[in-house]
Amino acid sequence: MAAESKSRAGDLRLWRNARLATMAESSAGLGVVEHGAVAARDGRIVYAGPESEMPASFLQGAETVDCDGRWITPGLIDCHTHLVYAGNRANEFEMRLAGATYEEVARAGGGIVSSVKSLRAASEDELVAQTLPRLDALMAEGVTSVEVKSGYGLDLDNEKKSLRAARRLGGERAVTIRATCLAAHALPPEAKGDKDAFIDLVAKQIVPAVAAEGLADAVDGFCEGIAFSPEQMARVFDAAKALGLPVKLHADQLSNLHGAELAARYGALSADHLEYTDEAGAAAMAKAGTVATILPGAYYFIRETKKPPVDLFRRHGVKMAVATDSNPGTSPLTSLLLTMNMAATLFGLTVDECLAGVTREAARALGLLDKAGTLEAGKSADLAIWDIEHPAELVYRMGFNPLHARIWRGQ
Amino acid sequence: MAAESKSRAGDLRLWRNARLATMAESSAGLGVVEHGAVAARDGRIVYAGPESEMPASFLQGAETVDCDGRWITPGLIDCHTHLVYAGNRANEFEMRLAGATYEEVARAGGGIVSSVKSLRAASEDELVAQTLPRLDALMAEGVTSVEVKSGYGLDLDNEKKSLRAARRLGGERAVTIRATCLAAHALPPEAKGDKDAFIDLVAKQIVPAVAAEGLADAVDGFCEGIAFSPEQMARVFDAAKALGLPVKLHADQLSNLHGAELAARYGALSADHLEYTDEAGAAAMAKAGTVATILPGAYYFIRETKKPPVDLFRRHGVKMAVATDSNPGTSPLTSLLLTMNMAATLFGLTVDECLAGVTREAARALGLLDKAGTLEAGKSADLAIWDIEHPAELVYRMGFNPLHARIWRGQ
Ligand SMILES: [Zn+2]
Ligand SMILES: [Zn+2]
Repeated sequence: MAAESKSRAGDLRLWRNARLATMAESSAGLGVVEHGAVAARDGRIVYAGPESEMPASFLQGAETVDCDGRWITPGLIDCHTHLVYAGNRANEFEMRLAGATYEEVARAGGGIVSSVKSLRAASEDELVAQTLPRLDALMAEGVTSVEVKSGYGLDLDNEKKSLRAARRLGGERAVTIRATCLAAHALPPEAKGDKDAFIDLVAKQIVPAVAAEGLADAVDGFCEGIAFSPEQMARVFDAAKALGLPVKLHADQLSNLHGAELAARYGALSADHLEYTDEAGAAAMAKAGTVATILPGAYYFIRETKKPPVDLFRRHGVKMAVATDSNPGTSPLTSLLLTMNMAATLFGLTVDECLAGVTREAARALGLLDKAGTLEAGKSADLAIWDIEHPAELVYRMGFNPLHARIWRGQ
Repeated sequence: MAAESKSRAGDLRLWRNARLATMAESSAGLGVVEHGAVAARDGRIVYAGPESEMPASFLQGAETVDCDGRWITPGLIDCHTHLVYAGNRANEFEMRLAGATYEEVARAGGGIVSSVKSLRAASEDELVAQTLPRLDALMAEGVTSVEVKSGYGLDLDNEKKSLRAARRLGGERAVTIRATCLAAHALPPEAKGDKDAFIDLVAKQIVPAVAAEGLADAVDGFCEGIAFSPEQMARVFDAAKALGLPVKLHADQLSNLHGAELAARYGALSADHLEYTDEAGAAAMAKAGTVATILPGAYYFIRETKKPPVDLFRRHGVKMAVATDSNPGTSPLTSLLLTMNMAATLFGLTVDECLAGVTREAARALGLLDKAGTLEAGKSADLAIWDIEHPAELVYRMGFNPLHARIWRGQ
């Protein structure tokens, strides 16, 4: 052991004189360690805990950073975004504020169709270029993992283009990208209203092709009156399951179609939005271990008034993640810190729930809990180091970024 | 003239190939100039308009910036902040989310008393040091003028210390600071409940001393059941008027004490908050030319449900400014871009109203309209240059900063 630690000393990095919020599930609350240190080797955490209890071998030859009493949390994880899109929909926003009806906006070419049109017209390079500033905004606040969905392509080529663009983000920046195929997001114009035929295309062609090329880590859908029925989503999920891909679901956002139960039945990683989920849905999610991903940005932006049933989730022990839902139509939001503030202010999540929601539970919602989301030995050394006196400040402030440093895989 | 322009060529700066939102009152909407240029000499705008109509003399010898089609707006103005404070109140926020009542928070030392205690314990240097990161956050989004109130000192020495700290911010950073004496903010503990005696102290000692030392540009107060009555505020305003200082008022935030009318009667620069203002108040403000300063951050943060009467303000022609109200208790907000989004999303202000609210109308609310707030010859060359396709994006996005460059007094 000693020989090994010496020969590998060059790979050893150490952050000491820090306060830790390990977010470890075995700890109470935030897993606070007042006089803490984190050691990493080859990009993985080998120790996180009290500095006084750290094996002496981690001190020798390590590249050491004195954190001057700053706080270290796990790198933040944004587990629900539609980050890859072209153009924006500020014009619709402006029209609606000026009094235009949804119908007038639609007649002017607005709505999701407008994003589909823009995305189809953009090259893969353009998509990457337009997405990077949004990714940079997230990363500037300590985000080290981002889930990115397709869903504005809505045909085989454009869904693949979106997912390739998502994958490429991970090559352009020091960040973990999880790509999700959301071909069942909306009906494209060329489907001419035939939802069943489009679901056939998704389940029989798009999802299998995407799986064959390894372009997606999960499959998602939008289960809603204005999108797809539970039966239609079940066909997409059957296809995903047959290919070994985990599933997620946009569920119960605008009405209760029992999407939460559908997601639970398929052992989904997460069900997301959930404003209209009822007790049966919460109970089913708890039993299945499906995470409830809370998306306050969309609730705020579209002036929704029905809140997700946070108390039901607590009562049934459903884990809650918190994410930006970053998208051009209903949540043009690229701050996970602000998202936490919204989850607290609008939905009453506690500080501990918010911080778990963007670390441990977000990792769980991505099937990444064995690799990220807490400061524990064996996980990726993804850290956010903060200029704060107390973790509550990360939730309390609005439009202020106290990030001191961001570490991804030990660097 | 030619000789003068040549001899002064070194002072001439030119931004060309830009799209302008001049915000000039004489123009419709945003005062858009598609192919525009701004010229400045000695820190003042000498030309802002179509590049094709610019006098040729402004081209010769000017230090020229090609804006590549980017948008230029006036530098943003945050016309209502309590930026100078010590510590923060994240702990109260955390307690309330965890279910504590206001009484429990107060018993734990929370509330405004806690900010008074922290401010009194801090040195002037510490106050400046703690405030600068907040000022930097505002400036990073193109803010070139900031109003800063006292009001956590609540005795002569600590009010003066706060205002000196505010003034010093302008020496530390390239930004215009307007300092406002808000001694009539709350009753300090040592007043033992005697509001009249404290108002005597404010009107007869604090305001005159602050005026004598030139520490304040205006006098403000909090007119509310939990603070001071209209009669008490009138005594403070009488003192301010006698000393030649303009006044402002925190009015009608939690109830209708007819603060708007009081402010109008004193020809106040602005009345601020105004959730409970009625039609008589709006009419009085219109007649007096008192600006309505809309503060959506506080409304959002304290979960207020009554909105300011925006339609009344429109109908009566009351000008509306939009500001952060940045403060530790009810609006820990340091993003004027996010504030615009809140004004639009929560109160239905249009894009044009939001942008005017943080430029021209904010300048008016500070008595600075002759010097700032629009791109017009004679005004300070305070510019914000943006990486956007359309000004609506500045209001639509949340937690994204598209600032390309910030220019203050031509630099
Ligand atoms: Zn979504
Ligand atoms: Zn205020």
